[in-house]
Amino acid sequence: MVTLADIRAAADRIEGVVVRTPLLPAPGVGPDLWLKPESLQPTGAFKLRGATNAVRSLGAEALPAGVVTHSSGNHGQALAYAARAAGIPCWVVVPEGAPKVKVAAIRAQGAEIVLVPPAQRLAAAEKIAAERGATLVPPFDDPAVIAGQGTVGLEIVEDLPDVDVILVQVGGGGLVSGVAAAVKAVSPSARVIGVEPELAAETAEGLRAGTLVPWPVERTYRTIADGVRTSPSELTFAHIQTYVDDIVTVTEEQIRAAVGVLAYQARIVAEPSGALTAAAYLAGKAPTGRTVAIVSGGNADPALLHDLLRP
Amino acid sequence: MVTLADIRAAADRIEGVVVRTPLLPAPGVGPDLWLKPESLQPTGAFKLRGATNAVRSLGAEALPAGVVTHSSGNHGQALAYAARAAGIPCWVVVPEGAPKVKVAAIRAQGAEIVLVPPAQRLAAAEKIAAERGATLVPPFDDPAVIAGQGTVGLEIVEDLPDVDVILVQVGGGGLVSGVAAAVKAVSPSARVIGVEPELAAETAEGLRAGTLVPWPVERTYRTIADGVRTSPSELTFAHIQTYVDDIVTVTEEQIRAAVGVLAYQARIVAEPSGALTAAAYLAGKAPTGRTVAIVSGGNADPALLHDLLRP
Repeated sequence: MVTLADIRAAADRIEGVVVRTPLLPAPGVGPDLWLKPESLQPTGAFKLRGATNAVRSLGAEALPAGVVTHSSGNHGQALAYAARAAGIPCWVVVPEGAPKVKVAAIRAQGAEIVLVPPAQRLAAAEKIAAERGATLVPPFDDPAVIAGQGTVGLEIVEDLPDVDVILVQVGGGGLVSGVAAAVKAVSPSARVIGVEPELAAETAEGLRAGTLVPWPVERTYRTIADGVRTSPSELTFAHIQTYVDDIVTVTEEQIRAAVGVLAYQARIVAEPSGALTAAAYLAGKAPTGRTVAIVSGGNADPALLHDLLRP
Repeated sequence: MVTLADIRAAADRIEGVVVRTPLLPAPGVGPDLWLKPESLQPTGAFKLRGATNAVRSLGAEALPAGVVTHSSGNHGQALAYAARAAGIPCWVVVPEGAPKVKVAAIRAQGAEIVLVPPAQRLAAAEKIAAERGATLVPPFDDPAVIAGQGTVGLEIVEDLPDVDVILVQVGGGGLVSGVAAAVKAVSPSARVIGVEPELAAETAEGLRAGTLVPWPVERTYRTIADGVRTSPSELTFAHIQTYVDDIVTVTEEQIRAAVGVLAYQARIVAEPSGALTAAAYLAGKAPTGRTVAIVSGGNADPALLHDLLRP
């Protein structure tokens, strides 16, 4: 399990690459609400924290050989950015057919793109790791990545020591694991509440059942919140069971509406996954009190965002 | 003239009410560009800094009687917020026919709205000041307001000491006066460049001519950038002449495009005036080097913003 010491060490490592995001009072959204806008990271999502901590945790021997991953989303872009900041090579394995916008964003960060059929992603990444000596950095199933994401929680309790409720997205579980581990160590009375779409609520279900039964992708892929369609790993689910107080769910309509509220009432561009927590707050699904809603990312597809912002 | 000491004192006064906004690297917009997102202030614009400094500069005798202004825009909302934070009354004189959205936002901050015919705004505010003993806080023609806005400049040079170019919106001139006074005192080699729309370029013209000849409102009201249709006062123009290196202009098309680039490439909601500086950077109108573009505000009309974000 990731400890407070791991997260504090991560906070030192990521300084200078990762933006220390402010806590924003959002009176237009709610009187007792603060937003933690991770959408403002240079790659548009909290993933830069974990990726940077993983890169900067590499030993002097492993560092020059670089890093590799098989995520074409926010983590791929984050790892490319972290690798460039460290001056080391980065390979990102991308499934054929991935959105051109995302591939271009990763390439713009200087990473080498490796296009493969979707089923061969992991194998291709492992092959690069074996042949090049590059370190495989997974999107969430990794203690250094979880510790990096946990710095979000550390900053929240530093900036608002008497916070009552912290709302966190739950997908693969890297963010909620790190945040909950940090918050429960520093401010144990604060409640950490995970948020999932009703259409991808496997972790809420698993937390109640005491065991995780992953939903098939046909089921989780129904939600518009594409950043949280993934299942937790054993490692992240163990953190969730230990540290997370509850997981609540929101409807697609609530997620869509929250994207608009964040843009017009708080001047924040959120992708649907990023708006999950504001949706839970606005729908009254979360406990009351001084609340922080993490806005995990802002990399929305332009056509979708335009549609969601129709006044 | 406002001094560095005034601005440092303002920085102390506004702490706890105003958000200390981060400098955001914006690799999707430009490789050597940082954004200073004042759109993230709780009222959506930098105006909260000046308003808060003005409120907190009131003596113990004047404070309980409250404050009054005649701006229905970002300054009105900011003064209402600053007054509520200080627990004092606030009157905002609003011209009949002002956008309901703006009036509602000011009322939501707890201010009393006074509706008058447009031509009677100043007289109505002065009457409230006389009758109630409230202090009139103008939007920019006031040393305490200018000093408050100057804290933006102080934060920029603190966070990026080797900045080469700082791009600042020019409307009434409160922001650019304060920022330039701060920057030239702390980092004199940094260039402070004002940005105006071509359609409201009276200050650029005045700076070259050595004297300000205000344009008629029929002329300045042609620009979409409604936050910078105002003319500087004698006080702000004197600061501009002393401290600002140059003023460049951008077209309406460049302003419109920059709103979209900020939303999609930097996850920032900017109103057209807020996007002026990014427009100047993107159009190559500004000097090169390590550049900070201030995003002065994000309170765009929803229908307009939706239109500008068409992919």
